[in-house]
Amino acid sequence: MGEEEMKLTVRLYDIDASEPTVLLHDDDCLEIGVAENDRITITGRHRAVGLVSRSDTLVNRGEVLVPEALLRKCGASDGDVVTVAYSHKPDSVRSIRKKMDGLKLNRDEIDSIVEDILDNKLSKIEISAWLTSLYINGMDIDEIADFTMSMAETGDILEFDSPAVFDFHSLGGIPGNKITPIVVSIVAAAGIMIPKTSSRAISSACGTSDFVETFCDVELDADTLRNITHEIGGVFSWGGSMNLAPVDDLVIKVEHPLGINPRAQMLASIMSKKVAIGATHLVVDIPTGAGTKVPTIEDARAYAKDLMDLGEKIGMHVECAITYADQPVGSAVGPKLEARECIAVLEGSDHPASVIEKACDCAGIILEIAGFENGAAKARQILESGEAHRKFMEIVVAQGGDPNLKSTDLEPGEYSYDVVSTKSGYVHAVKNKDVVAIAKAAGAPADKGAGLLIFKKKGQRVQQGDVLFTIYADNEAKLKRAVETARKYPPMDIEGMLIKRVAPPNVR
Amino acid sequence: MGEEEMKLTVRLYDIDASEPTVLLHDDDCLEIGVAENDRITITGRHRAVGLVSRSDTLVNRGEVLVPEALLRKCGASDGDVVTVAYSHKPDSVRSIRKKMDGLKLNRDEIDSIVEDILDNKLSKIEISAWLTSLYINGMDIDEIADFTMSMAETGDILEFDSPAVFDFHSLGGIPGNKITPIVVSIVAAAGIMIPKTSSRAISSACGTSDFVETFCDVELDADTLRNITHEIGGVFSWGGSMNLAPVDDLVIKVEHPLGINPRAQMLASIMSKKVAIGATHLVVDIPTGAGTKVPTIEDARAYAKDLMDLGEKIGMHVECAITYADQPVGSAVGPKLEARECIAVLEGSDHPASVIEKACDCAGIILEIAGFENGAAKARQILESGEAHRKFMEIVVAQGGDPNLKSTDLEPGEYSYDVVSTKSGYVHAVKNKDVVAIAKAAGAPADKGAGLLIFKKKGQRVQQGDVLFTIYADNEAKLKRAVETARKYPPMDIEGMLIKRVAPPNVR
Repeated sequence: MGEEEMKLTVRLYDIDASEPTVLLHDDDCLEIGVAENDRITITGRHRAVGLVSRSDTLVNRGEVLVPEALLRKCGASDGDVVTVAYSHKPDSVRSIRKKMDGLKLNRDEIDSIVEDILDNKLSKIEISAWLTSLYINGMDIDEIADFTMSMAETGDILEFDSPAVFDFHSLGGIPGNKITPIVVSIVAAAGIMIPKTSSRAISSACGTSDFVETFCDVELDADTLRNITHEIGGVFSWGGSMNLAPVDDLVIKVEHPLGINPRAQMLASIMSKKVAIGATHLVVDIPTGAGTKVPTIEDARAYAKDLMDLGEKIGMHVECAITYADQPVGSAVGPKLEARECIAVLEGSDHPASVIEKACDCAGIILEIAGFENGAAKARQILESGEAHRKFMEIVVAQGGDPNLKSTDLEPGEYSYDVVSTKSGYVHAVKNKDVVAIAKAAGAPADKGAGLLIFKKKGQRVQQGDVLFTIYADNEAKLKRAVETARKYPPMDIEGMLIKRVAPPNVR
Repeated sequence: MGEEEMKLTVRLYDIDASEPTVLLHDDDCLEIGVAENDRITITGRHRAVGLVSRSDTLVNRGEVLVPEALLRKCGASDGDVVTVAYSHKPDSVRSIRKKMDGLKLNRDEIDSIVEDILDNKLSKIEISAWLTSLYINGMDIDEIADFTMSMAETGDILEFDSPAVFDFHSLGGIPGNKITPIVVSIVAAAGIMIPKTSSRAISSACGTSDFVETFCDVELDADTLRNITHEIGGVFSWGGSMNLAPVDDLVIKVEHPLGINPRAQMLASIMSKKVAIGATHLVVDIPTGAGTKVPTIEDARAYAKDLMDLGEKIGMHVECAITYADQPVGSAVGPKLEARECIAVLEGSDHPASVIEKACDCAGIILEIAGFENGAAKARQILESGEAHRKFMEIVVAQGGDPNLKSTDLEPGEYSYDVVSTKSGYVHAVKNKDVVAIAKAAGAPADKGAGLLIFKKKGQRVQQGDVLFTIYADNEAKLKRAVETARKYPPMDIEGMLIKRVAPPNVR
């Protein structure tokens, strides 16, 4: 059915969209029998598929407006005559319908969806319906395992000359979490292989790669990553520079505006990257607390169970660490500031308890899985002995960093502003979301010197006039913006010890 | 949060999309803190909201590419400097999330969604999530009643000087269903007010308006429709020429590519148009059979119950007619062919049983609701006496048609092809979907002469060489295409009376 085809003249138009949108005249649409958001095939020397938008003003009858990438795909040039015809929906749309109907998908059906998203064959409407169905109807653990392997297999899968390859992942959502290079350095110093890839900030102020790239190169290709890992044991790479489960980035573009992250998608997305990096053992940090993705211990336990069940299905040993995340980790938030604090911990020149404890606890779990006793104590010993710092420097140098790197080399932005307390009392809360908003207003993560240094944490005593935190920025306008943000959304609650007086009703 | 704003230079670009998409450079997006598919406000002399697409090739840093309609909205011209800032999602997105979470929506929440779709404030991603949630989680009858009234109130609501205003609706999905002008003529001839609006074909070969417009004007404005109805009692108008529940058209653009029609959306969509036209009493024809929207009697009963329950909630008297729809109604499919058969029935010059019976049964229900006894018999008497034809001609003339209109004035396309039977036997099936595909390949509904005339219906005896149906087209290329379609998808199954021989296993 729908055998109607037409000869139309191609006109190039410049639009960059995640969808291959073509523009047709209303009357030509009627003639071909296509509606808005239907697909058409455009045949020049080759055949390509576009998504229809209609207009009776911007396009003439007999014309089809095609963006450049699609024009190249169909092997035609501006002004050529091409054949345009209705194109059926891909089979993956049927699989999406099946999930909308609450049915279980098999591996082939999941593959069809994953591959068609990757090949740009599904429209935003269809991907949105897919994610909404996943959010509402979910997937069982078999489906999630298939989904994970399907996502992993759309990209490269690395292999290492080792029976045990460790990985470490944080669910994120907490600012100042600069522990990853510390964990990797401790673990690699113990002789354990850990090819760690990290992400850049999506909605946060600073991802691991955002601060690591202030002191060494993070855009490693797969060969370089493998060589460094084989030689040194660890690496701090940006995941985006390799072709690991690449479909994820396309899905995020639709997830983000919906404000959802369906459990099945989240689990498959994390675990597919671990399969792709060749991990056999994985420790997941689950930051838990107000203002994070995981507000309560019950939620954290559910995530941990999901991750471990999924690990069992796909043959990966998974353990989880539920960590405290009611306030930022350490003092620094922002690329250079976090780099400085991270390196200072490795040098032994600074001792922020929350950073050291969290890093050693997480590294400790990995050490115990690998056969060491008293993992956390062993991790602390490796850190305090300077072994972790030596391993860190080996990795930094292998990634093109300065062999004489010192924490003090990393200087925050030259514009700064001290925020002081207007009253005396105790710090009752340091709010993650507001801290992130201020750092972002100051220019993080794009401006490397931007961010915050926090001097008072939860429970500490504050005098009126004490500096609570300093905001840094690379230019004055952004500093001003960040200060305004801090004024509108004060990130700290300071109260006397008496939070609320409760009196009987007859006392006014 | 997200207080970041930037001054950017506007550049006009021509894209017609259902969404107000603007193009920003990747680095500017990072600076403002917006991701793809986020919203921004653009402030020139006024403020307007756009949806972000990112590129680092098509747009320079410091520029924002804005389509014409949006440029006008924000009060800026090509080359002006505007202020661009992150914009929060509208509240309706929160209501959509609520439906995603399976919760019941109140009238305000439903209003926010309906109004934001109408004002183009929701992206395709969000509308898709809304429809998918509706499809999966549904609405209860209170929500559907609110949804109906909300949709109706976004447009005009007509009022008539009459305590009883009747309407008639067919769920559609069956080709050749030309009964509407006959029903309206019979009902109006009995002195009952019926301001009937119809649609054009969306996926079918010919909607009521597509064939009525071959003999009179259907694009009436609200005043004309009201005047004709007050004067003559009935009217055959195209619904799209008035502002009746206009949000529906925007939703269809997203529903269609998903291939879904959520029950709540379908019911609210039908009933909101009836509220808008001022109907107090409604009869709904539910065509039931293979290859239609309603395959079984059980499905039809469920639809009927929904419609009647909803009618009760919103104060409209609703009755339903479940009708036979295993094959086309009458012989003709396609605009002029259906017009000719419809007028011939009114003239009494042709007697296709299925058309006359269905029209009189449906009109009969309306007559009985209005107080007549033996409605179907009364309807047939009005038809056979010529009263219905006289009323029909009054309406046609009021809508600018020829006072001497005859069915024979309507001539099908000059190119035709007879499809003959290759064997003798009985007609076991006339498949609706294939009939529609052939008529569309021939050019229907845009080409008014295109379509089919069917000579053999289900159960009839056929000799080898008998003409089964004739295909008509307005030009030779489309006739050829339609003949090919008929070859690929033969719309009739012809078999001997013995369908399958069942023999005991020992007889080969």
